[in-house]
Amino acid sequence: MSNFLRACRGEPVDRIPVWFMRQAGRSLPEYRKARAGVPMLDACRRPDLVVEITLQPVRRYGVDAAILFSDIVVPLHAVGVPIDIKPGVGPVLDTPVRSRADLAALRRPEPDDLAPIDQAVRGVVASLPPDVPLIGFAGAPFTLASYLIEGGPSRHHERTKALMHSDPELWHDLLARVADISADFLVTQVQAGARAVQLFDSWAGALSAADYHQFVLPHSAAVLAAVADLDVPRIHFGVGTSEFLGMMADAGAEVIGVDWRLPLDQAAERAPGRAVQGNLDPALLRADWTVIEQQIQRIVDEGRAASGHVFNLGHGVLPSTDPEVLARVVDTVHSATP
Amino acid sequence: MSNFLRACRGEPVDRIPVWFMRQAGRSLPEYRKARAGVPMLDACRRPDLVVEITLQPVRRYGVDAAILFSDIVVPLHAVGVPIDIKPGVGPVLDTPVRSRADLAALRRPEPDDLAPIDQAVRGVVASLPPDVPLIGFAGAPFTLASYLIEGGPSRHHERTKALMHSDPELWHDLLARVADISADFLVTQVQAGARAVQLFDSWAGALSAADYHQFVLPHSAAVLAAVADLDVPRIHFGVGTSEFLGMMADAGAEVIGVDWRLPLDQAAERAPGRAVQGNLDPALLRADWTVIEQQIQRIVDEGRAASGHVFNLGHGVLPSTDPEVLARVVDTVHSATP
Repeated sequence: MSNFLRACRGEPVDRIPVWFMRQAGRSLPEYRKARAGVPMLDACRRPDLVVEITLQPVRRYGVDAAILFSDIVVPLHAVGVPIDIKPGVGPVLDTPVRSRADLAALRRPEPDDLAPIDQAVRGVVASLPPDVPLIGFAGAPFTLASYLIEGGPSRHHERTKALMHSDPELWHDLLARVADISADFLVTQVQAGARAVQLFDSWAGALSAADYHQFVLPHSAAVLAAVADLDVPRIHFGVGTSEFLGMMADAGAEVIGVDWRLPLDQAAERAPGRAVQGNLDPALLRADWTVIEQQIQRIVDEGRAASGHVFNLGHGVLPSTDPEVLARVVDTVHSATP
Repeated sequence: MSNFLRACRGEPVDRIPVWFMRQAGRSLPEYRKARAGVPMLDACRRPDLVVEITLQPVRRYGVDAAILFSDIVVPLHAVGVPIDIKPGVGPVLDTPVRSRADLAALRRPEPDDLAPIDQAVRGVVASLPPDVPLIGFAGAPFTLASYLIEGGPSRHHERTKALMHSDPELWHDLLARVADISADFLVTQVQAGARAVQLFDSWAGALSAADYHQFVLPHSAAVLAAVADLDVPRIHFGVGTSEFLGMMADAGAEVIGVDWRLPLDQAAERAPGRAVQGNLDPALLRADWTVIEQQIQRIVDEGRAASGHVFNLGHGVLPSTDPEVLARVVDTVHSATP
């Protein structure tokens, strides 16, 4: 079994596995070339492009896992939600979901809706070296719901939070539908050959622990439960969620993603028995190499406190990141004593 | 002594004092009228406007404290840093501070630089009811440094963090200068009659506790130390800083500002012996009144665990907030049993 999968399961590894969130993306010149003139959601629906882009960082860096090139809103788009990704802005939709009548837009995916993803995943898996697993991924219900309710990226999530508290019945119905869509998307990826999954809850850190527990946790748990019997490690990641890492583990994750704010040894205490992944501040990839090297060593040392350590950043690769620096990070992690 | 000052000092109160961060601002029609056609930094330099705008929420809501209408970059602007506030964007400057030579721009304020603030504060204090204290305020060194280094608001603070780690000597020199400017600004306000101060570190939550401790804490402590002997309670506030609330208290604060993520009773445990302020999620002011009422009661209950409780939001009033709702919050807090 690969070091990545072994680390996710808390088993001994030959060397510390490493991959990067958003390793396939704008920091790579070959990505910018492949994407030139192709809108994001079009690219995500073209299996040839998904295969090429997903493999680019594997070829370039020798990372221990690939992550499917996609976007968290792809499954919403696939069921017909009129959502688009505006460059420099993010996902936007002209008809936000704010009433019971709007829920009809969130229908369960049909096999045809999922076919492009199925095909893309099969293509990626066929092209990957056999010792490099593909990580499937999906957006978590809260983050997706925030886009749907706000109509786009939001700094304060005002409408989302107001709806959550003022109409909990509608809120839970909405999240249950989004969770079904995310779950189908994840299951499709695993059935097509993904050997791990990551559930991204980009905005969950905007919530208090109490609100997360009451309004979000059951729905993220439902997504993770959908792949519980498929023998794939489940990674659960949020940003600024240190106060409720234990709940994110309880949602059904074998691996807890950690941002750059909380050291891995403290994360391991809050999510006992889980593997940990993350913690290198992506902003620091612009610092001098000696700084990065010290950070890597610190993270490797602190990661030993957990039942399994997957090296990663604390958030996605920033577009301004020098790929040469990431290559050096991979080599340094691979040279470190697990 | 006012209930506000008593709560800050952990003394018994007749009723729970309440004020709102950004209570003087865009949510008020009278503010929009007063500011019409006047750029932000011009408004901050006109004592007549500062007096009028600072008093508006006191008149309208009967809050227990006024906060000086200003902006955290006003002192930088006052010493000649070519900074502007762009509507909808925030503070921007064309010549960021990134090298030792750039530090010269950060000179210590002369009395003339501080005269408009001195005059504004005296005007406010003369106009306020005697039982309503004025809170002076300043931006904390990290947040100001991030604007200076990035050249504007930044989501990832990449250059700031890279500089901090790659050239700690330059970093500390830069922050020491910014701290001197902030401190002079605070001292001026207190000498002119402000009876409490709040140090705002809007962006500190972007940091790990270790980085905050090494690179930021000494400089925020220097600002708070500058007013330590002036007999004013010092409030220290950041967003997303729950992991290092204890350090923010250690920096020299009598009152810890708490965002909406951490309940006040937990905040009180992390900053023992301090009063607490905050925690109502400003986004929830858009929820139904019964929701807001429950949140107020929860916060009042949890606030009893601390040595002093000042009711406030967990961040500034959002521009879309209905002033009628804030008026109702004030009345409800005032009716609650302390």
